[in-house]
Amino acid sequence: MRSHLLSIDSLSRAHVDHLMRVAARMEPIAQRRQVTRVLEGAVLGNLFFEASTRTRVSFNAAFCRLGGSVCDTTGFTFSSMAKGESLYDTSRVLSGYCDAIVMRHPDQGSVAEFAEATHVPVINGGDGPGEHPSQALLDFYTIDKEFTRLGKRLAGAHVLLTGDLKYGRTVHSLIKLLSLYDPMRFTLVSPPGLEMPSRVIDRVESLGHRVEQRESLAGDFSDVDVVYTTRIQRERFTEEMNENFGALSRDFSVDRSFIDDHCSDSTIVMHPLPRDSRPGANDLDVDLNGDPRLAIFRQTDNGIPVRMAIFATLLEVDDLVEKDLRPVRWFVPARLGVDDPAF
Amino acid sequence: MRSHLLSIDSLSRAHVDHLMRVAARMEPIAQRRQVTRVLEGAVLGNLFFEASTRTRVSFNAAFCRLGGSVCDTTGFTFSSMAKGESLYDTSRVLSGYCDAIVMRHPDQGSVAEFAEATHVPVINGGDGPGEHPSQALLDFYTIDKEFTRLGKRLAGAHVLLTGDLKYGRTVHSLIKLLSLYDPMRFTLVSPPGLEMPSRVIDRVESLGHRVEQRESLAGDFSDVDVVYTTRIQRERFTEEMNENFGALSRDFSVDRSFIDDHCSDSTIVMHPLPRDSRPGANDLDVDLNGDPRLAIFRQTDNGIPVRMAIFATLLEVDDLVEKDLRPVRWFVPARLGVDDPAF
Amino acid sequence: MRSHLLSIDSLSRAHVDHLMRVAARMEPIAQRRQVTRVLEGAVLGNLFFEASTRTRVSFNAAFCRLGGSVCDTTGFTFSSMAKGESLYDTSRVLSGYCDAIVMRHPDQGSVAEFAEATHVPVINGGDGPGEHPSQALLDFYTIDKEFTRLGKRLAGAHVLLTGDLKYGRTVHSLIKLLSLYDPMRFTLVSPPGLEMPSRVIDRVESLGHRVEQRESLAGDFSDVDVVYTTRIQRERFTEEMNENFGALSRDFSVDRSFIDDHCSDSTIVMHPLPRDSRPGANDLDVDLNGDPRLAIFRQTDNGIPVRMAIFATLLEVDDLVEKDLRPVRWFVPARLGVDDPAF
Repeated sequence: MRSHLLSIDSLSRAHVDHLMRVAARMEPIAQRRQVTRVLEGAVLGNLFFEASTRTRVSFNAAFCRLGGSVCDTTGFTFSSMAKGESLYDTSRVLSGYCDAIVMRHPDQGSVAEFAEATHVPVINGGDGPGEHPSQALLDFYTIDKEFTRLGKRLAGAHVLLTGDLKYGRTVHSLIKLLSLYDPMRFTLVSPPGLEMPSRVIDRVESLGHRVEQRESLAGDFSDVDVVYTTRIQRERFTEEMNENFGALSRDFSVDRSFIDDHCSDSTIVMHPLPRDSRPGANDLDVDLNGDPRLAIFRQTDNGIPVRMAIFATLLEVDDLVEKDLRPVRWFVPARLGVDDPAF
Repeated sequence: MRSHLLSIDSLSRAHVDHLMRVAARMEPIAQRRQVTRVLEGAVLGNLFFEASTRTRVSFNAAFCRLGGSVCDTTGFTFSSMAKGESLYDTSRVLSGYCDAIVMRHPDQGSVAEFAEATHVPVINGGDGPGEHPSQALLDFYTIDKEFTRLGKRLAGAHVLLTGDLKYGRTVHSLIKLLSLYDPMRFTLVSPPGLEMPSRVIDRVESLGHRVEQRESLAGDFSDVDVVYTTRIQRERFTEEMNENFGALSRDFSVDRSFIDDHCSDSTIVMHPLPRDSRPGANDLDVDLNGDPRLAIFRQTDNGIPVRMAIFATLLEVDDLVEKDLRPVRWFVPARLGVDDPAF
Repeated sequence: MRSHLLSIDSLSRAHVDHLMRVAARMEPIAQRRQVTRVLEGAVLGNLFFEASTRTRVSFNAAFCRLGGSVCDTTGFTFSSMAKGESLYDTSRVLSGYCDAIVMRHPDQGSVAEFAEATHVPVINGGDGPGEHPSQALLDFYTIDKEFTRLGKRLAGAHVLLTGDLKYGRTVHSLIKLLSLYDPMRFTLVSPPGLEMPSRVIDRVESLGHRVEQRESLAGDFSDVDVVYTTRIQRERFTEEMNENFGALSRDFSVDRSFIDDHCSDSTIVMHPLPRDSRPGANDLDVDLNGDPRLAIFRQTDNGIPVRMAIFATLLEVDDLVEKDLRPVRWFVPARLGVDDPAF
């Protein structure tokens, strides 16, 4: 891995494999059975120029669980950038204070520009319509971990991606990452106008994978291993789509009856979160809460070991963690959520 | 104690006694003579959806003094909740990142709803007009500790509650907590229209306590052990009250002359803070600053051992702390405030 | 040193010498070769009532690198102060939570008023047009450290101060601090109307230093050891100045050609940062980036050892740090910035 993590595109299969192995090594800490202090004395600059509480807290907690200290910055602007400071200066100044920097920013390319000025590891926490590589890595880790639990293999797997496949950057990143591996099969289901861009599909196919586009969730999906669903944002609908909204909504909604009727007992359901649980939101239905096939909370939990692995790899302590463990002394509930299944 | 601290109503006398004992054990750390690291590696999610700097800093410092790390969230909304995320999802997601969660929220019941989704301990840091149990516990701890210093006993004590007794949630919670103990005497003094609700009075009386309501602070209070005063918010006045404001103000103001002339040398004065020190604010007068009977800063100091006790009890490290102490190595002033009395 | 750091005026030469010695002792930690934990268990209240991300992060990181925990407060007001709480009450309450307090506030004198109520060490992080002592100390430390590297001595040094010398508080504080030492020479260059106040010049001259005022950067500056430049804020221009803007801009701009043509190879260029890098900003030019004479990033890096020294001295752990060191275990790049020179 290079000294920054800016984009999925810079990762080879060997890089991803290494990160997944390190993430697995972090599980005893992430599951709060063990404590490590390898990063004691290190400082993370956790810079969120765009609000994203969950991502900020996840990076913060991951760094703390490695023993480091975190300095959060939230708000739409860095005060000195408002006074005309360049990203170059901001980056170089913060490099003098921090040992690693996570940055989220609404402008595509801004995190990469920030990273150009510094040798301190920079992690892209999301740059607007650009990249959000840690999300893709935790999605991949989730599929890998769930498949291990279910006795499945990645090669030949069938992944259904549904919802807004045009604007949803998480599905683009995830499919790119999966494409690095042995041939598998992707089915894409989205309302007309929100299809996956053809450049993404071409790339996936050129790497030997099978891609099929379908117009609705009607039909048989019983051999689907993963349903990855994203929200359809109605503000992106065309006028025609708005007229057909009732029909669209039925054709693209993932809920318990769809999973029960069209999928199998070993299908898992994923979502990048947050999901909109308000009535009529066109998002993953809450009626799957408590169903063991709903993997969305295991998926978000996986943000901790994966982000720990990113930090540990960039800061080169990935081989030290296992020699620096001691047992947790406080109370940890057997299950975190009240509806969590016991496997 | 259950796995959350949401309301005073869920606490028995045995629970309160246990918390008070644990808080007393925390004193060497809270007074900065000793350091402990029992929660090293643990992460607190300190979620303040309503601004309350002092309460936020108090919980943060208490968790840090137990050795843990804190991730603060401030602001009127959690970014993903603005996108339609349910409290259920927010709660479950944060449970994957944090070992304990403090939540303050303007909506009554929201913290309880949040806690329903998780087995990770949740502490109510104030839910609007609802509950603020850590404030009631530190008020109770203050009375207990001051009584010990003064050689007094809780049984038979006389507590004067004054100010806005209708809307002030802290006085409702404190009187409920005191009611769990041996019979004592309460005198309530508030402007007409801001009296203590009768359901609260009925409950206190049914538990064997004596409650007397008076119309002003005129008269003898020489046997009062505690004067607990709260601010009268003028925006809650009726038109008639506004007309009589001058008289009201004289009848309900707690200042040095009231304590000197109507109370005794061993009376202590408490206040939940913040107090409004602007001219004409109808709040506890600043002319008592430096008087040893003014217990308001000892009261706020007690927030640290009490909140440490809450964390230690919920995370089940209350028996470990005393085995994990070492001396503070940095400078600690003999007195924190310039006007603090030396007892 | 007294128990607070509020102003440069309170510091004697002996105080400054001590702080510089302690800062030098912090270098192995600041440069991330060593880790210390002397302040483990201590809590810093880092109160920024005015936005200043870099200063906030610098104090935060410095306290963390000593082993302490930090509780940040940002935003234009402390929530309880909005409810009428006095600075006296706020100060006394926070003293019960924190072992040291950094405060930045837009109102001159507010930090000193805050400090009057408490024996807990308070550090002025900038009080509007008032003082910002840690900036002056890190500027002084930078000159001292650069001179040592270049084999120069402070006595007899020639310092050029340029830009807005009327409103720039950092140049006032720095010249006061340098004035405590053996006689040196200051040349002041500023647009008409933005000259250094005569009271500051009188004080410097009365202490035996030579001060010369010049009207532009034309001429020979080859014996200048330090060029300290600050931004000229055009909103402070008079109408006449605006008319002559083109000429002014040429007369007062510090860039590579000025340094190449008018200064020497051993001249260093400093700036308090942030600098405005937008076109036409009248600030230090970016064309010096990468030039080893540009000391601005070494200057901001020095904020860490200097602020560590301030904390260590106020909290009286300055003699303990060297006995409590262990090696850093994570990756630290050989150079922080991509353009950093290798000396």
